[in-house]
Amino acid sequence: MIQYKAPLKDINFLINDVFNFQNHYQHIPGGSDATPEMVDAILGEAARFSEEVLAPLYQSGDEGCVWNNGEVTTPKGFKEAYQQYMEGGWQGMSAPVEYGGQGLPLSLGVIKSEMIGTANWVWGMYPGLSMGAMNTIYMHGTEEQKQTFLLPLTEGRWMGTMCLTEPQCGTDLGQVKTKAEPNGDGSYNLTGTKIFISSGEHDLTDQIVHIVLARLPDAPKGTKGISLFIVPKYHVNADGSLGERNAVSCGSIEEKMGIHGSSTCVMNFDGAKGFLIGPEHKGLMCMFTFMNTARIGTSIQGVGTAELSFQNALPYARDRRSMRSLSGTKSPDQVADALIVHPDVRRMLLTQKAIAEGGRAMLYHAARLADHMMAAHSKGDSAGYEAYDDKLGFLTPILKAFLTELGYEAANHGVQIYGGHGFIKEWGMEQIIRDAQISKLYEGTTGVQALDLLGRKILLGKMKSFNEFRAEMKEFIKTHKNTREMKPLIRQLKRAMFQWRIGTFRIALKAAKNRDMVGAASVDYLMYSGYIIMAFFWARMADAAYSGIKAGNGDTDFYKAKIQTAQFYYDRLLPRAKAHGKMMLKDPKSLMQMKDEHFSF
Amino acid sequence: MIQYKAPLKDINFLINDVFNFQNHYQHIPGGSDATPEMVDAILGEAARFSEEVLAPLYQSGDEGCVWNNGEVTTPKGFKEAYQQYMEGGWQGMSAPVEYGGQGLPLSLGVIKSEMIGTANWVWGMYPGLSMGAMNTIYMHGTEEQKQTFLLPLTEGRWMGTMCLTEPQCGTDLGQVKTKAEPNGDGSYNLTGTKIFISSGEHDLTDQIVHIVLARLPDAPKGTKGISLFIVPKYHVNADGSLGERNAVSCGSIEEKMGIHGSSTCVMNFDGAKGFLIGPEHKGLMCMFTFMNTARIGTSIQGVGTAELSFQNALPYARDRRSMRSLSGTKSPDQVADALIVHPDVRRMLLTQKAIAEGGRAMLYHAARLADHMMAAHSKGDSAGYEAYDDKLGFLTPILKAFLTELGYEAANHGVQIYGGHGFIKEWGMEQIIRDAQISKLYEGTTGVQALDLLGRKILLGKMKSFNEFRAEMKEFIKTHKNTREMKPLIRQLKRAMFQWRIGTFRIALKAAKNRDMVGAASVDYLMYSGYIIMAFFWARMADAAYSGIKAGNGDTDFYKAKIQTAQFYYDRLLPRAKAHGKMMLKDPKSLMQMKDEHFSF
Repeated sequence: MIQYKAPLKDINFLINDVFNFQNHYQHIPGGSDATPEMVDAILGEAARFSEEVLAPLYQSGDEGCVWNNGEVTTPKGFKEAYQQYMEGGWQGMSAPVEYGGQGLPLSLGVIKSEMIGTANWVWGMYPGLSMGAMNTIYMHGTEEQKQTFLLPLTEGRWMGTMCLTEPQCGTDLGQVKTKAEPNGDGSYNLTGTKIFISSGEHDLTDQIVHIVLARLPDAPKGTKGISLFIVPKYHVNADGSLGERNAVSCGSIEEKMGIHGSSTCVMNFDGAKGFLIGPEHKGLMCMFTFMNTARIGTSIQGVGTAELSFQNALPYARDRRSMRSLSGTKSPDQVADALIVHPDVRRMLLTQKAIAEGGRAMLYHAARLADHMMAAHSKGDSAGYEAYDDKLGFLTPILKAFLTELGYEAANHGVQIYGGHGFIKEWGMEQIIRDAQISKLYEGTTGVQALDLLGRKILLGKMKSFNEFRAEMKEFIKTHKNTREMKPLIRQLKRAMFQWRIGTFRIALKAAKNRDMVGAASVDYLMYSGYIIMAFFWARMADAAYSGIKAGNGDTDFYKAKIQTAQFYYDRLLPRAKAHGKMMLKDPKSLMQMKDEHFSF
Repeated sequence: MIQYKAPLKDINFLINDVFNFQNHYQHIPGGSDATPEMVDAILGEAARFSEEVLAPLYQSGDEGCVWNNGEVTTPKGFKEAYQQYMEGGWQGMSAPVEYGGQGLPLSLGVIKSEMIGTANWVWGMYPGLSMGAMNTIYMHGTEEQKQTFLLPLTEGRWMGTMCLTEPQCGTDLGQVKTKAEPNGDGSYNLTGTKIFISSGEHDLTDQIVHIVLARLPDAPKGTKGISLFIVPKYHVNADGSLGERNAVSCGSIEEKMGIHGSSTCVMNFDGAKGFLIGPEHKGLMCMFTFMNTARIGTSIQGVGTAELSFQNALPYARDRRSMRSLSGTKSPDQVADALIVHPDVRRMLLTQKAIAEGGRAMLYHAARLADHMMAAHSKGDSAGYEAYDDKLGFLTPILKAFLTELGYEAANHGVQIYGGHGFIKEWGMEQIIRDAQISKLYEGTTGVQALDLLGRKILLGKMKSFNEFRAEMKEFIKTHKNTREMKPLIRQLKRAMFQWRIGTFRIALKAAKNRDMVGAASVDYLMYSGYIIMAFFWARMADAAYSGIKAGNGDTDFYKAKIQTAQFYYDRLLPRAKAHGKMMLKDPKSLMQMKDEHFSF
């Protein structure tokens, strides 16, 4: 019964009122094609496809994939939906024109992915993973590799995977054991086992192109000895047609908590032929070059989870009747008042709404940065690329961890609003939780994101991008601090920003003396930063809504609801930052003093 | 691979060092039988049964129940385990001697239920629900009803259910439609549909005794027109043997997110013969008389969830190797350091531990109050009964909601510690989350508990039991404020207690002007209160541990770990109360001002 309606009004509010994408696109290669009419048409079509084709497959997809003797069958309807997607040219929308794409801005691709991923995250994982393989080949492949592999991937005729994890290691990829032995003809034979490979095997396309982390025979130990390889499921003939099966196969698929429609494969490489991509031993570095865009991808799941759960909790809260309002009966002619009259139900709905819309704003802001980053790359401007990569690098661990944690919370509120019915499969609300659980784990757990943020981006990065982001906030605060209606929010935002700086400096000082401070503070620091950043974007949305009302755009009710949601956020979500801000400054002693053997007796 | 080891050392620490159950039992009927040797023997045997019989059925039980033409088969091994349980006389352990029980204190039954429920909550639901039916008949049944139904229930030969929920209502039982028509011979014919009936049908016993909420023909509307009935699956002959099938049947079982091994039944009453229990139209009141003990039952799930997840995350954190400690390599001879060296992993483990042990202390405190309450009841001391019922009534919504919310959080940490493997069914960590989800929903959602606490227990109750509880805290603070080692905790506890009072008064003042304040503040108020109450019990545990060390009890390492966990709690969990304390005082406006139709456009 889960339904999805693309929130085009909310999306357009962001790209028009808040971020002015039209202006932004004038500075981005390919942006000139993204005229308002084109953007409208694309979003409308993506909305239709998500609502009508993908959403109806969400609950039925929970039946899961079937493994049979190395072959994987995806849930009913997945293949037909993919056929439509491929024929629509969706996979190459933001891919470079020279390799078969349409060269539209990456940010437009993010909005498309958001709609697809909200309607049916599990289905969206297949093209999403393929995008990861495409990016790798685009950034690091030879021209020949691009012609051979990137083109059909962009067209969607083939699909790709990322093969990183092995049984003994996920986060710590320095432990990778898969071997690549040179064949002497420029190709390699790969041997090893990879686990948790999403889309490792399926029936959506014949060919599957695996990007695989492995070690050359002479490789140094640890992360400095890992190289990257392309390993196709079928060998590719000179004319691009498919040849014999390569020695890579799917040994089994995992039974999981959720995302049952996504095949999570054990992949066996038994002397599978592959091709080195990027320099020897630099595989991990190559992987990390587009980690930021990959993490944006995962953070979409946080937004989508909150949005989908909200959209399906709201009608239930309006229809289901239980008890009377404490402030006086609202529907005397009915057996009871609707759930939505109760303040605590409203608290849960507004929390979902504030997370979905606040998260979306953070996401689109990051997507704009990614547009600039890709623009610099395509112009060969490596300084510009790095500058935007840094800006994005500061935000992405926050987006990834904070938004998936909050998305998960929102999904839980959705179940609470349904009461006992939320626990029942038929309604679909519990599936949203099960599917969201993985978002906190893959592409680096919340803990790993937090270490990346505080250890690498803040402390090793000497707070450069942190200060740049704060400069933007300051500018906004300066401009709006004397606006009558914005004053209450600005006052709180200013205080939060100030404390954020102090807190960050205090952690840095403590970490200089005690390295355990970094890990001890990290998750609280990330959540703290997330709440403050989201407060910034809620202030910007409130500001844009006030402007919209003043301009008499006619959507006064819509704009008012934005302002009310912003007020809700500042009243009832932002105060959480206080607790995180307190806990992150505590001495690591209370974490580190207990001996390992004393955790239980 | 989920394993369970009963934490007997932790349990004994509470019943000996912290709460002195031996002394307590001298004031409780049946307590004289609960000698230290007897208690030891019972706990040891309950531990063995839970560890060896129930825990091995936890993961396999996730396969679920099978419905076939009205019959329900429980998972493999459930029936055999129940046979052992019944033969061991466990069901009647705390039941009155005059109706076949052993008359041991209720608190001992809580500890038994905790072990059973931690090892295998789902299995434990069957006898747990039966206990609800037993209590109802004991409190409100006629002597004949007790002889007919209570005896075999106590012996475990029969089992019972509670049939409250209907498709149109769960929380709002005033909407119950099931009808009871008098047959003229003192019996009634019941017609209607009940849903979400746990253990409604199963193969553990032949006879199932349903306690059913229904309306008499002349019943007033709403909650004041509901009566309570006993409806057996099989008619009972005069000699107590089973006769013909009654017209009650299981139409289907629900597909759910978790607790698959528990049969959640749609029960159809098609003119089923039943017997009135308690006065006409007073059914809801009768139900509520033991609601407090029922809620203690559910709060056990929060403690059990945290404990089980912790017990299974800890060995993984010790064994799994990933990355190096930021403060310097810990295992240079290994490929990487163990997870447990990382501060954030320790934060998650200690959070689980602090929740499990802090929750257990809250639970045992409540169980002691329940002992007193039952003692007063059995002496016919209704004033005493009400006094303890009030004390317990203040605590139970907090225990139920706060502990199940925190237990759920702890289960999530368990999955995070496992990383991607936490999402895989085989490890069992995700099952703990799925099974815990229901704990926040049944017996009243978190929101319903919060309204009960703030609306009924605090505001309607004129803060009587709130003040009584605070008096206990004050007394403890007074006694310990000058103890050198307790000072740091006491200082924080005192401040928290002071703010708790101020906050409660401020809410009361605001609620007097605006009734929406109650619902708006309720969940934050409940969580706020929970953190402060848990802080009190952690202080008491720290104090008992310091005393244990001074007394030279020889368990210095064990006691030290308690003190360290208390410090962790005050450093890294108690500060959360601050955020809740801030949010609960906000004006309801930010929740109430948005029009229903403006939640989405």
